[in-house]
Amino acid sequence: MNTIDEALVLVRPAIRKMAGYTPGLQPGPGQKLVKLNTNENPYPPSPRVLAALKEATESAIRLYPSPDAHPLRERVALTYGVTPEHVLCGNGSDEILSLLFRTFVDRRDTVAYFDPSYSLYPPLVAMSEARVTTIPLPRVREARELGSIPLPRLRAKIFLLTTPNSPYGVAFPTEWIRQFLEVFKGIVVADEAYVDFAEESALPLLASSPRLVIVRTLSKTYSLAGMRAGIAMADPKLIRQMMKVKDSYNMGRFAQIAACAALEDQDYCKKNRDAVVTTRRRFTAALTRSGCTVLPSSANFIFAVPPAGTPASALYEALLARGYLVRHFRAPTVSDGLRISIGTDADMDGLARAIEEECRGNQ
Amino acid sequence: MNTIDEALVLVRPAIRKMAGYTPGLQPGPGQKLVKLNTNENPYPPSPRVLAALKEATESAIRLYPSPDAHPLRERVALTYGVTPEHVLCGNGSDEILSLLFRTFVDRRDTVAYFDPSYSLYPPLVAMSEARVTTIPLPRVREARELGSIPLPRLRAKIFLLTTPNSPYGVAFPTEWIRQFLEVFKGIVVADEAYVDFAEESALPLLASSPRLVIVRTLSKTYSLAGMRAGIAMADPKLIRQMMKVKDSYNMGRFAQIAACAALEDQDYCKKNRDAVVTTRRRFTAALTRSGCTVLPSSANFIFAVPPAGTPASALYEALLARGYLVRHFRAPTVSDGLRISIGTDADMDGLARAIEEECRGNQ
Repeated sequence: MNTIDEALVLVRPAIRKMAGYTPGLQPGPGQKLVKLNTNENPYPPSPRVLAALKEATESAIRLYPSPDAHPLRERVALTYGVTPEHVLCGNGSDEILSLLFRTFVDRRDTVAYFDPSYSLYPPLVAMSEARVTTIPLPRVREARELGSIPLPRLRAKIFLLTTPNSPYGVAFPTEWIRQFLEVFKGIVVADEAYVDFAEESALPLLASSPRLVIVRTLSKTYSLAGMRAGIAMADPKLIRQMMKVKDSYNMGRFAQIAACAALEDQDYCKKNRDAVVTTRRRFTAALTRSGCTVLPSSANFIFAVPPAGTPASALYEALLARGYLVRHFRAPTVSDGLRISIGTDADMDGLARAIEEECRGNQ
Repeated sequence: MNTIDEALVLVRPAIRKMAGYTPGLQPGPGQKLVKLNTNENPYPPSPRVLAALKEATESAIRLYPSPDAHPLRERVALTYGVTPEHVLCGNGSDEILSLLFRTFVDRRDTVAYFDPSYSLYPPLVAMSEARVTTIPLPRVREARELGSIPLPRLRAKIFLLTTPNSPYGVAFPTEWIRQFLEVFKGIVVADEAYVDFAEESALPLLASSPRLVIVRTLSKTYSLAGMRAGIAMADPKLIRQMMKVKDSYNMGRFAQIAACAALEDQDYCKKNRDAVVTTRRRFTAALTRSGCTVLPSSANFIFAVPPAGTPASALYEALLARGYLVRHFRAPTVSDGLRISIGTDADMDGLARAIEEECRGNQ
């Protein structure tokens, strides 16, 4: 009578049906791999982050955090030139995206995004039982810049704009986003996880765009992936609605402390960013010499399509056997390439040599 | 044309209508208050927690955490005598509760709980657009134990059983929960945030009850409220469904490290628990002498109804003016009492004197 099958029937059908998101592999402590699959930063966070965490007292462990991450909201506001009321902080930008769905997306509402985009969106759509409209981005080889992409004409509750795009790495110009906000009548989420590595952002549009929500993470430029720190910026009235949906203490004290300290050290962040951008340029040139087609990246990763004769899936396996963990997506629009995070110069030089050898061997 | 009112129309009606949860006040750094309103532990976490956090390297900050909190799941399994597959870890037990709603509760499903219960449930119901059935617990003065409460006969998708109850502090005996699992055909969530301060728990029922989900937090006995660490234990097949709903990296590395270290030090936890229970006994006796009706608590707080002539709301304000922050809920079933967290002996002796003076002054 009391079987697990009876219990499973009580699970929402939408959840039973879905497969769930597959995060990039996190190798165990024993595995010696150069980890270039989840776009972490190869450099440590600002020394101020380490210092601030070391100073944290037992009461930072024992007492509940500020429910609205108060000091951090003020620091974000200072950093980006908005007011604290424009800011919501969360447990990584993944939580921010989940909160956006739970705030705006009712069952049967339409959610739209380009294909490819961040691979977390489909499970969020499935959980919300929303409809989805995907708009193909021109195939990799033509999509070298996004400013000329026609403005999508569609009705949807929310449009998720991954910019810079993942896994392509190319970014939408601010002017394109401005025009899109004119023709599209729903909520535009500029999912700017990688924007610090780009030249432009949607931020200048925030003051005049009450339907724009900007999503950022401190996992990338600020090297805080382990701490879980994400940010939404939007009109204070929208932020207030999102605040109702989040857990009361959604961001722990250590995450708040680390995020504040990281944002305070903009000099360090810029140096870190510049180092990644320089390596990205070198690595792109090296891969191009090996016959790969590399999209011009505005992110801390590149999307590379190996030359004919070297299928991306085979190259993925060959690199893994050599100790390099990169990312290969099975979705048809991106399965011909690899997404490779930008690591240190030494790691990327080694990887470029490995790729050259693998591609040459197949010619 | 582009106004914030147009944007607000895009918010889900269920969210627009709801008020949102009000967490207990977290006084600012400048405010000198004895904080007894959110049931934090007055003692620091195990020294092993501090040591483990100090040892955490920059890569714990920089790299994504284990998506399923792998080492922590193993530690939880060892601690509670289950397998790691029975365990899901989250960003505080509030996230676990939110995940339970998102896994099991469809729009128009019925969610049931006793009134009073944890005050987070109503906003979770509102967000899910669920129906709610609340079952009144006998008024405070008669509810001194819960074993004799008649088993609720009702149909619902999920029953949230706060045990020990908050704010009453009294606990449901294991045998009562066992019988309830026989008559109720939905998911029974034993929300055991305070169970380490009680004599019994639902844990012995887990192996034979595929519809039972046990929710725990490390905020209370383990003094980790600032870190955000919560646990669900259930049949592995239910856990697998809940895993699909959580954010991929829902628990940061520092939270995982702190939780592992805290669970490893059971001796410290027991000493900590015993100290709180001893103080609870002293404080209960002192308040009883002042004419308060104090429910027999199985938690790290007590619920006290002041004597006639001293309304609970007035007593709350008077204590705040004296520097003691306790909790007063406005809901009619509990507005005649105060929920007071158990702090150190010194704090509770001072508070007991303050309450005595306030009550005497009104007689």
